[in-house]
This record gives sequence, C-alpha cells and structure tokens, in this order.
Amino acid sequence: MRAADIIRKKRDGFALTSEEIRAFVAGTAGTWPDYQLSALLMAIVLRGMNEAETLELTQAMLESGERLNWSGLDRPVVDKHSTGGVGDKTSLLIAPLAASCGLAVPMMSGRGLGHTGGTLDKLESIPGFQVALSPEQIVAAVQQVGCALIAPTESIAPADRVLYRLRDVTATVDSIPLITASILSKKLAEGIQGLVLDVKCGRGAFMKTRDEAEQLARSLVAVGSAAGVKTLALLTAHEVPLGRNVGNALEVRECVEILRGQAEGVEDVRELSLELTAGMVRLGRGLTAGEARRQVVAALESGQALETFRRIIEQQRGDPRIVEELDRLPTAPRTHVVRADRSGYVAGWDAHAVGQAVLLLGAGRDRAEDAVDPAVGARVLARPGDLVRAGDALLELHYRDEPRLGKALHLLQNACPIVDVSPPWQPLVLQEQIAPE
Amino acid sequence: MRAADIIRKKRDGFALTSEEIRAFVAGTAGTWPDYQLSALLMAIVLRGMNEAETLELTQAMLESGERLNWSGLDRPVVDKHSTGGVGDKTSLLIAPLAASCGLAVPMMSGRGLGHTGGTLDKLESIPGFQVALSPEQIVAAVQQVGCALIAPTESIAPADRVLYRLRDVTATVDSIPLITASILSKKLAEGIQGLVLDVKCGRGAFMKTRDEAEQLARSLVAVGSAAGVKTLALLTAHEVPLGRNVGNALEVRECVEILRGQAEGVEDVRELSLELTAGMVRLGRGLTAGEARRQVVAALESGQALETFRRIIEQQRGDPRIVEELDRLPTAPRTHVVRADRSGYVAGWDAHAVGQAVLLLGAGRDRAEDAVDPAVGARVLARPGDLVRAGDALLELHYRDEPRLGKALHLLQNACPIVDVSPPWQPLVLQEQIAPE
Repeated sequence: MRAADIIRKKRDGFALTSEEIRAFVAGTAGTWPDYQLSALLMAIVLRGMNEAETLELTQAMLESGERLNWSGLDRPVVDKHSTGGVGDKTSLLIAPLAASCGLAVPMMSGRGLGHTGGTLDKLESIPGFQVALSPEQIVAAVQQVGCALIAPTESIAPADRVLYRLRDVTATVDSIPLITASILSKKLAEGIQGLVLDVKCGRGAFMKTRDEAEQLARSLVAVGSAAGVKTLALLTAHEVPLGRNVGNALEVRECVEILRGQAEGVEDVRELSLELTAGMVRLGRGLTAGEARRQVVAALESGQALETFRRIIEQQRGDPRIVEELDRLPTAPRTHVVRADRSGYVAGWDAHAVGQAVLLLGAGRDRAEDAVDPAVGARVLARPGDLVRAGDALLELHYRDEPRLGKALHLLQNACPIVDVSPPWQPLVLQEQIAPE
Repeated sequence: MRAADIIRKKRDGFALTSEEIRAFVAGTAGTWPDYQLSALLMAIVLRGMNEAETLELTQAMLESGERLNWSGLDRPVVDKHSTGGVGDKTSLLIAPLAASCGLAVPMMSGRGLGHTGGTLDKLESIPGFQVALSPEQIVAAVQQVGCALIAPTESIAPADRVLYRLRDVTATVDSIPLITASILSKKLAEGIQGLVLDVKCGRGAFMKTRDEAEQLARSLVAVGSAAGVKTLALLTAHEVPLGRNVGNALEVRECVEILRGQAEGVEDVRELSLELTAGMVRLGRGLTAGEARRQVVAALESGQALETFRRIIEQQRGDPRIVEELDRLPTAPRTHVVRADRSGYVAGWDAHAVGQAVLLLGAGRDRAEDAVDPAVGARVLARPGDLVRAGDALLELHYRDEPRLGKALHLLQNACPIVDVSPPWQPLVLQEQIAPE
C-alpha cells in the first residue's frame, strides 16, 4: 500500500479503510516521511473523516503505544478532558474531588501552548512538584491517593506526538476528526472506563462558535462510546476568563482557596468543577445526577478534597505546606493595577485578550521550547456585571519586567468594556449532556 | 510572515497575496521544511488558485532560477509543450520542422515517468546523443542549427524541481494551477516569445476527460498570455497510441521515417506535428494559418527538416549516420507477435495499456532513479479501423527477457477489442485554438 495512493484517496474525498488508516499511523514511526504525513493531514482537514474512520484512527493511535494497567484496582477509572480555556484550573480541583468520591483518576494533562495555560505548568509552580511519573509510579499514586496529576508518558500514543508536532506547524490542527482522535487516543491509553468532556466555545476557546463546539462534542461522545468508554460532554461558554486568577501560581492559589471554602467571586470555577466531577461520578459509579452532585459537594465542603489535594502534592514530591501557607508559592516582584476610565457596569472581559496578555507577561509559551514563568499573571478584580466607578481597580497584573508589562497593557486596552446597563446573565453550561446519536 | 499562517489562509479558501506566494516559492530553497511545502500543496490542490495567483506562482518559480539569454538572435524564439502521451514523439519532429521554418527552438523536455515515455530517453537511444548542455551550449546550438533538444539546466526554475519531487509522492500533481505554473515557469525560462501547447485528453493522457483538459488549456493560455508570451493551445484526443511505434529507439526510427517521407500508417503523428509546428510559425512569424501550414509542409517534403534533424544529432554529439542507417539504433534481441483471436475490425488500442506494457518491458521507469532500456517497445501493426482475420498480427513486442514479456502480455489482454462493425472515425484535434478569455 503506497502512501501516495492513500493520500490521493482521501484527497479525492473517499473514506479510508481500516488498513489504510493503520498504514498511516504506523507510518508516523518513520516509514512515512513528514511531507507525506502532512499532505494526508491537510487532505483530512479539508475532506473530513466519517465516524468509523475517526474511531479507527483513534484506536490505531492508541495502539501505537501502551495502556496503563489497572488490574487489581477496585475503583472505577474515570477522567475528564477540557478543550482548554483562560483561567481554567478545574483539573486541579476535579482530580481530588473525584478521588474523594471513590474514583481512580490518572489525569494526564498538557503544557500550555498559545493563549491558554497548561495544567502541567500550573502544577510545576508548586515547589518540587514532579509531573513526569513512570507508568508504575502513576499506578502506585492512584492506588494510594486516588488520583495523579501527570504528564503523558513516552509510551502513551506516540503516533499522536508525531502528528501533533506536525499539525501545529502545518495549519492542520483545526479538524474535528483529528482533534477527536488526538484527545481520545491519549485518554483511552489511561485505561479509563468513563470520560467527561468539557467542550468550550466562545472568544476564549479554540472553538469560537457553538456550532463547531457542538460538532466536536458529538464526535468525541460518538467515538468515545464506540471505543467502549462511557462518555459524556458538557458544552460550556468561554467568553470571559474562568475565575479571577490567570497565571500558573495564581491559579494554584485560587484552587486552594476554593478547596478551603473561600470561593467569593470564583463561583464559576467552583460550579464547573462540581458539575464535571458529578458527571464523572455518575459515569463511574452509576449514581443519579442528584446523588452524584450531593457526594461531590460533600467532598468539597467536608475538606476531604483539600486533604486529597495535599496528599497528591506530597505523593508527587511537591511542598504540601502550600495548602496551609499560600505564600510559599512563587510571587512576581511587581504588580500593576488597571483602573476603570469611567463608571458603569463591567460588560465582560475578553478571555482571549487576557490569555494573550498573561502569555506576554511570561506565563505561557509561544513555542514548545520556551520556559514558563510560574509567578506572573493577572487577577481579575472586577468581574462581569460588577458596578464600578472611574478609577476603581479592574485588573491586577503580576509582572517581572516593564517591557513585557507594556505589551500586555497594550493588548488589554479594549478588553474590558464598561457600559451603562447591567449586562444580561450568561449561562456557563450551555448544554448538559450530549449522548451518542 | 509565518509559513503556517500562509498555509492556513489557503486551507480556508482565501486567495494568497503576491507576497505570500513569493514567500512559499522562496521557501523551496530550504527555509520551509518539506512538510510545510506539502501541506500548502495539498491545500492548493483542494482549494485551487485563481488566475492572478497562478500567474504570480509561475513568475515566482521562473524567477527562482535563470532565463536563457537570446540577445543578438534574429529569429523568434518559440517552443511547444505537450502534456504527454503514449507514442508521442512529435517533439523530435517539431524541433527540426520549426527550425527549418526560421524559428529558434530551445526545446527543453523531460524524462519519462509512468506510462508515457520521455523525449530525453528517446533522444538518448541515439548512440552518443548528449541532452545535458550548459546554457551557453544551448544558445550556441540554437544559433547554429536553429534548435536544440535538451534537458532543463540546473539553473532553470529550481523551485519547480523541489515542488515537483514533492508533488509526485504526496498526490499533489493533479491541480490545474500547479500544473500550469510548473509547465510555464520552465518554458518561460527559455526566454520564448511564443508557445504552442498540446493538451491531450483520453485514456492515454493524464487528463482523462475533455472538460479537465479544456480547463488546463484555458489556464495555460490565460497565464502564458498574461506573462507576455503569445500562447496557443490545441486540445487533442489521446485514446490510442500516437503512430505505430512505442519505445525509445523505435520512436526515433518512426520519426526518421516520417522525415524521409515514409508515413504509411503514421499519418496521426505526421499531422499533429505539422499542426503544432504551424501554430508555432503563426505565433513566431505572424503568418496566417494557411501560409504557416504551407511552409511547414514544404520543410518536411523538401527534406530540409530531415537535414536539420541530422544536424541536431551532430551538434549534440550523437551519431548522425542513424538518419541514413536506421539499423545503427539499438534493437532488442527478441520479438513476439500478438495475433487476432477473431476476425473483424480493430476497434482501438488502449493507449494506457500499451504504455504500461512498454514500461514493463523496460522502456520507461516507475521511479525517477530507474534505468531505461533504449531498445524495447511495441509496434502497432493493426491500427484502429483495420480489418483483420483471426491469426493476423496485431502488435509486435520488442523485448529482452521472458518474465517482462509475460507481464506485458498480461496487461495487453483486453487492450485491442475486435468488432464486427467498422468503428467511427475519431478526430485527433478536438479544438483548434483556445484564446485567452
């Protein structure tokens, strides 16, 4: 089977056979040169893949590597995945919440790239925290604590790593079948029985329109279910940053505050985390929505989730004292406050602009090899709907050097419109569940 | 300007700017990795390019290399290009015919790849013939003989070489803008004032349908004219092999026979060569169609074209005695005759099957690095419309080894249907001229 023939077939709009898809995925190990991989990727972006092809691609990518082995574990293994957002630190809350509700959560996350932060970068702002665990260490951590917050191991879906690197530089990221296979191959490699997806749409999300996000959610649920994993998706709005804090250590701080019960002004983070975790508990333990929600809230309010979070940090060699002493987290040397230039209601914060500004301050990376500053970031002081007076503080930037601050401020110029009429309330969860059709 | 942004723009169906197209072409020199080039090629195949983009691409590819310099030459420089066919040896006739009519013809051709032969391979079956001339040698040859039959020099459109090599292995050959730019960039680099195109359609051609061929012809004429070259295209049918002989030395033999005035059964090759050359004379010397035709026929019938052909061979270090002594051309050690299994009329020869069979005998190459056998090939003994009896000779295969013969015969099994009713006459030239719109 020649690579060029497979590429031609997809180019001409035909569905590929299982054998052809497997030849492509096997090709990522070196038998297909990069230029043939990228030509087929572009053909897939423009011609699409049907559900059967997407499932085959997902499974071939999954089988390009190894799967975590949970033999002997007596808890259901469930995970969550989010398509990424500005200020989205829910993974750090969901892992201990779900573990506290009797689930096993081997949560593999990524690093930040572009305007959204990465869970691994956030975790590494905790002094000493190790995200690179071996498969055996992951299993041991999950057995002891109930969850682990980790980087994908080398043996997880290596085909996805090769393809993702290429997609990033060939404008072939935006494809529902390719995104579906990339997400699910890695999640399936965790050996999960259930998966809850947070598919975001809006100006802060990768999917700008609800229609696109809905298509992705349906594809993920259909393929995940077909692959034998109970899958559920929430479609959520992402126009403004999630919570108040954006930036690595600042987001860890916000998580600890929520786990401690201090959630003033960050109800959105708390609510989304509870909803997603409740979904996981429903899938993993077969509970009703109401019962699942009740258990998750109890795990939060009892302090059990905070204790689990402390234990994760300890297990992964981080400094667990940050749970009591937040000042042990890195802090930026300087702060700058952005103030309102008129009185009125905060109409909203442009999540994308805030994300980009924080990236410019050094919290994220433009290229995969860039280093990340754990301390810098932003704190949203006036949230959408708040009534402010001219001169009131809107946003606090935590920064290290002036030139970066200047660029960030420039980006934020029109990010927070102030209006005369209180903006209408916007729901966070747009659609509760997307079942396979 | 980032490569990924340019790729994304074309992926999303937008026209690229001049600057973006030039960045892509400049990228072929090494600044764009192959995987970005191939991703953009696939996006162009599937999204297309408008005429302005195609012109820009053509000119950028032309300007990636050098142009032949004709200062001081007092003849119009004109060339012809064919999209390639089985048994199409017209270049070997047209160059001396056009030179005999007062044109300068620096005819750069290619090697065979796939089921059609290459002019360079045919020429190299003439003992000693050199196709690799320096730009200075090309100019000197054209000044002395009126024409040269040559390989493209290294300095001609190097961007096209890089892209063509990639297109061949990434299923990105079939694209009218890419084909247009590839053909015209190389032809424009010859410094021509006029160009006649033979765009073939049918089962023996790359363009299978008349509609595709017409689109390509229109694109070539539009872009060639916009680039300042008088351009004319003939749309020709290519269902059966052109002439009787297919294979390198066999085709050279047929050309010499035609130039000697022996054209029995090869009227199609003779007629197409006359028509294409007449087009060149019209463009180059501003003659009417009738006057141009008259001069070309005179050049053939007077023996002047034969003498020019002899002089080309001499100029390019080949053995000019082949013109008188055809047996000096290489011959295959064995022949095999395919015979009719019933009586009736020859309905046609499948040009593609004959081309593939001759390729299998060793006359062509599957990969660019394969060697070519100059002697093997096929002679069509019964032409479409001929009345044959069971047992009559249909085709003579000239071969070197039995296993290859077996494969070729297998391919030819259904290549020559014999029917009870005389097949209708099929015109060779389907459309005489395609002017820019």
